[in-house]
Amino acid sequence: MTTHRTSPSNATRRNEASRRAILAAAFELVQEVGYAKLSIEGIAARAGVGKQTIYRWWPSKGAVLFDSFLMLSEQPDGGGSALPDTGDLEADLKGVLRATIEELNDPRYDEPMRALNTEITHDSTLAALYAERLDSPMRELKKQRLRSAQRAGHLAEDLDLDVAVDMLWGPLLNRWLQRSRALTPDYADSIVETALNGLRPRR
Amino acid sequence: MTTHRTSPSNATRRNEASRRAILAAAFELVQEVGYAKLSIEGIAARAGVGKQTIYRWWPSKGAVLFDSFLMLSEQPDGGGSALPDTGDLEADLKGVLRATIEELNDPRYDEPMRALNTEITHDSTLAALYAERLDSPMRELKKQRLRSAQRAGHLAEDLDLDVAVDMLWGPLLNRWLQRSRALTPDYADSIVETALNGLRPRR
Repeated sequence: MTTHRTSPSNATRRNEASRRAILAAAFELVQEVGYAKLSIEGIAARAGVGKQTIYRWWPSKGAVLFDSFLMLSEQPDGGGSALPDTGDLEADLKGVLRATIEELNDPRYDEPMRALNTEITHDSTLAALYAERLDSPMRELKKQRLRSAQRAGHLAEDLDLDVAVDMLWGPLLNRWLQRSRALTPDYADSIVETALNGLRPRR
Repeated sequence: MTTHRTSPSNATRRNEASRRAILAAAFELVQEVGYAKLSIEGIAARAGVGKQTIYRWWPSKGAVLFDSFLMLSEQPDGGGSALPDTGDLEADLKGVLRATIEELNDPRYDEPMRALNTEITHDSTLAALYAERLDSPMRELKKQRLRSAQRAGHLAEDLDLDVAVDMLWGPLLNRWLQRSRALTPDYADSIVETALNGLRPRR
């Protein structure tokens, strides 16, 4: 059997261009109008495609938005790289949590990320997809950094790394979602110090 | 000037009965149909009142739902009481976090609480109201228990109690909202132990 390699056809390239235009349009539009008013019609108009093109590829606006996050996370500068590892765990974690806070406070991401979180809260299928495609890869990168710290003796040997990840990032996300207080760089530092040292007095 | 005390008029009693019927109807209905399909019309029909009665008292379905949570939290068995204080902080916190998990996993509360959290995420006015009327009083009860532990020397003296509360409850709420993994009693125990001891090795 011979394989017959060809360059992508014009149709394939056109599809890919439409797909990217749709995802970019959805991401832009949700920032402008909010998730409640985001519609397939609106996305189609902004992307310059017919509604049917969108319905052919995605079942709902939530699914479109999810894929636009995925596209962002797959870009070279959109994450997906290892966490910094200078050997100073506390400083590295503070840097990463401060960056997370900066992103959560960025008006460009605020509305789309709230929308994504809302969809996940109400839609268990999307939640499973999110866990598999976005959360798990990010969580694995975080655990890699913690494993390296464990090997260096900076973290308890019997630590459950999933619990550790939840304890570092959970408070940030929760404060952001509930809008209970301002997310500041000091808060990031305070979470890292308190998580590392624990609530009990250290003697 | 003399004050003239009267018992509540019939009209006041009728209003209060209608208000309670509306709040109970909203809470029941959101469990059955989900937040997206919850409507003022539906609540009115279930409560046996006219739509206008609801619009006279509340601006939106989110506001109705919020007040139904407030009504629940004001009931004798709906919370609002101090956290257990047996002198064993770890056991007390495990008990409280296990109870929180049980509530979050209860199908009667799941949909209404997700709906409330979604509204808060997108509506900063409601978020402020939530922070003031529901979150702050609960947070104060949690901090009271932590202050008592601090006095007993069980918690670090310089601990930021708000950070401590976020570290104990944030991971639970976040795991629940993101549906990332099952919320189990073991998870509650693990969060309490890890938060108290910290992530670093204890020597």
